[in-house]
Amino acid sequence: MSGNSLDPYADRYARRTQGMTISEIRALFAVASRPEVVSLAGGMPFLSALPMDVVGEMMGALVTGAGATVLQYGSGQGMPALRERIMDVMALEGITGSADDVVVTVGSQQALDLVSRVFLDPGDVVLAEGPSYVGALGAFSAAEADVVHVPMDGDGLIPAALEETLLRLRREGRRAKFLYTVPNFHNPAGVTLALDRRPQILDLAERYDLLVVEDNPYGLLGFDRDPLPALRSMDDARVIYLGSFSKTFAPGLRVGWVLAPHAVREKLVLVSEAQVLCPPTYNQYAVESYLRTQPWVEQVKVFREVYRERRDALLEALDATMPEGCSWTKPDGGFYVWLTLPPGLDAKVMQPRGLHARVAYVPGVGFYADGQGRRELRLSYCLPEPDRIREGVRRLAGVVEEEIELRTTFLGPVGSWETWHRHSPSADAPGPDLA
Amino acid sequence: MSGNSLDPYADRYARRTQGMTISEIRALFAVASRPEVVSLAGGMPFLSALPMDVVGEMMGALVTGAGATVLQYGSGQGMPALRERIMDVMALEGITGSADDVVVTVGSQQALDLVSRVFLDPGDVVLAEGPSYVGALGAFSAAEADVVHVPMDGDGLIPAALEETLLRLRREGRRAKFLYTVPNFHNPAGVTLALDRRPQILDLAERYDLLVVEDNPYGLLGFDRDPLPALRSMDDARVIYLGSFSKTFAPGLRVGWVLAPHAVREKLVLVSEAQVLCPPTYNQYAVESYLRTQPWVEQVKVFREVYRERRDALLEALDATMPEGCSWTKPDGGFYVWLTLPPGLDAKVMQPRGLHARVAYVPGVGFYADGQGRRELRLSYCLPEPDRIREGVRRLAGVVEEEIELRTTFLGPVGSWETWHRHSPSADAPGPDLA
Repeated sequence: MSGNSLDPYADRYARRTQGMTISEIRALFAVASRPEVVSLAGGMPFLSALPMDVVGEMMGALVTGAGATVLQYGSGQGMPALRERIMDVMALEGITGSADDVVVTVGSQQALDLVSRVFLDPGDVVLAEGPSYVGALGAFSAAEADVVHVPMDGDGLIPAALEETLLRLRREGRRAKFLYTVPNFHNPAGVTLALDRRPQILDLAERYDLLVVEDNPYGLLGFDRDPLPALRSMDDARVIYLGSFSKTFAPGLRVGWVLAPHAVREKLVLVSEAQVLCPPTYNQYAVESYLRTQPWVEQVKVFREVYRERRDALLEALDATMPEGCSWTKPDGGFYVWLTLPPGLDAKVMQPRGLHARVAYVPGVGFYADGQGRRELRLSYCLPEPDRIREGVRRLAGVVEEEIELRTTFLGPVGSWETWHRHSPSADAPGPDLA
Repeated sequence: MSGNSLDPYADRYARRTQGMTISEIRALFAVASRPEVVSLAGGMPFLSALPMDVVGEMMGALVTGAGATVLQYGSGQGMPALRERIMDVMALEGITGSADDVVVTVGSQQALDLVSRVFLDPGDVVLAEGPSYVGALGAFSAAEADVVHVPMDGDGLIPAALEETLLRLRREGRRAKFLYTVPNFHNPAGVTLALDRRPQILDLAERYDLLVVEDNPYGLLGFDRDPLPALRSMDDARVIYLGSFSKTFAPGLRVGWVLAPHAVREKLVLVSEAQVLCPPTYNQYAVESYLRTQPWVEQVKVFREVYRERRDALLEALDATMPEGCSWTKPDGGFYVWLTLPPGLDAKVMQPRGLHARVAYVPGVGFYADGQGRRELRLSYCLPEPDRIREGVRRLAGVVEEEIELRTTFLGPVGSWETWHRHSPSADAPGPDLA
């Protein structure tokens, strides 16, 4: 029996539900979405850059022209024509392979969940960057896996740290089922795995017999150069690749995919059928039609320019206004900047003051499975206009100033904060060096 | 280590994947979808009855008018306006409650999976009608639950049989987490739970402290009378209700829902977020707009008349042509007839001969978790035109005739089939009395 007498069903729930709590991000959104608040919290793409008249006409015509097909049940694996076009998309990052090894999913979140369900028994270890994507942590937690974080620096995951972790796990007799990584324009860290590190990571995967789950929703959204080759383009036997149309087209359609070795692909389809029967047929036709009839590569360039301008606005405003002692990453693509506060400050404790000052961000702790990240926070520049971003950073800088003053007034200079802060078990855990 | 040396990943898969095999139905579809085959196999609704011009225009206008909203991420629980309209739909079967207790899902398959993940630990017992919906069995199997079947008759689930099963489980020290039931126009059995049995089932649920998962995709598709009151309308604390727009509007949108007691609802949302982040926003707007702007109740009547005519064609053809010894259910709604072959025949063994004669059905074994159902098969009348249905039954009757002759020639009269057939462990298990 559970001790929770308020929930009459408490003694019936499956064990896997025990670790589930409301996401930091969800709890925040109700407040953050008020119009007077500048939200640097959400990861919502700037969809207004899409030509809605053209897209709307295309989507209506699908039903008018072939409604009995596009509104009908489809196959669990997803429609072949879309899987062929997905191969074209992946070719931009050097990936070759067979459309028969692609599984269409309900966004790449479902892909994360499918991979978790195919590979993870309770207690299995998953390696993941620290910080890591909160949705992935949710899927791993639902599978009752233990996430072990591996630190990053400005060039992404650190190979030596990965090997150290693998050796430690081996000594402890624990086996990691896979490494989960977001190599490009990391969510939330904003960093990219350097080209020369990619074969090193794959070499470690080979030597320690590790699978790699490469999650790449932002890969085509680089500001300064062509996409780097995907890990999957260098190793088709150890890498399971996850892609998404949420950032290059429309998240509300929930169309993502997995490319997996053939034997794994078959398991993924079986699990997906038990989970959703088939991904939405209509949405697959919509994406397939969009890729086939619209200048989608040009549209991605439009998105890139939008996000580049916003990234510039954010970084310039941070440079101009943030108090000394703060540091942050400098993304060259994607949606996010990762900011580290001066020692003694706590991004989660500070959050209500941020909202009071009408600026929202996501505190860092939600991006770790182990309580790290108290001094860290994520800033998103994808949705607000540049002027709003500047205003948001100005507000945030004011809040951080006040926090520093408050701490100084009550606790004396920096050295003593460290001591004071030690009551919070993880507050002084070293954050990743992301600057 | 697994013994499967052909799959290099075999020693990595999670335990839950072990019971997963390709569904009987999926394996069949490739062949059954050839144009020369009359398919009485699939459960695909007859979508051509929808006014595609109007629906297409409506769906295009959503994007043209509010693309940046309808193509954006949404909440994990689903949009409030749709949940309000779902309350209106359920009101037709006597259900009252709060839209806040509704969770929108990716078809009701995801609802089945969510309920399984919230409640089922490996080895937990689920009670389900025998036969039961194959998609539900898939979700329960993925949760590593044990399904215990409870027989039906022409009035649906038999309360005395349910109590007997509950007593037996209690003696064995096993606890059933919930009863899964399709009360209306059962898939695959075609029967409906009689009105007077509904409170009896709920009374047993109360006395044995059992939850009830009421899966009701076909409830509004009754041919002869108004819908019966839902189990959920009689008990809002023990019943978790699953609904779907796949049969009343369009399965390719994958929009279903769960109505659950509040505490359970919160868990369902958490699991759904870990699984798909949010159900497709656009699809929710499409359904909400359809319910708000289109004469959807009238459209359901159109569907009913289509399916009634097809049901009549199927039953008349069965009466006219099926050999003695066959029996079948007489549905007064929904999509399915459940047919039992004479003793000694095996619907799965007969299937290739059916396909050779250009008629497809689904063998019964896939609808049981325990190998029952060899003499049984499911016939769907939802998709083919009445003349095709009659032709399909004529072909099927020919195949059954031949099977009977073959058995008689090689094995002598009926009595000795029984003996012969005993080598197949479950072949002689009594099928449910569904006639």
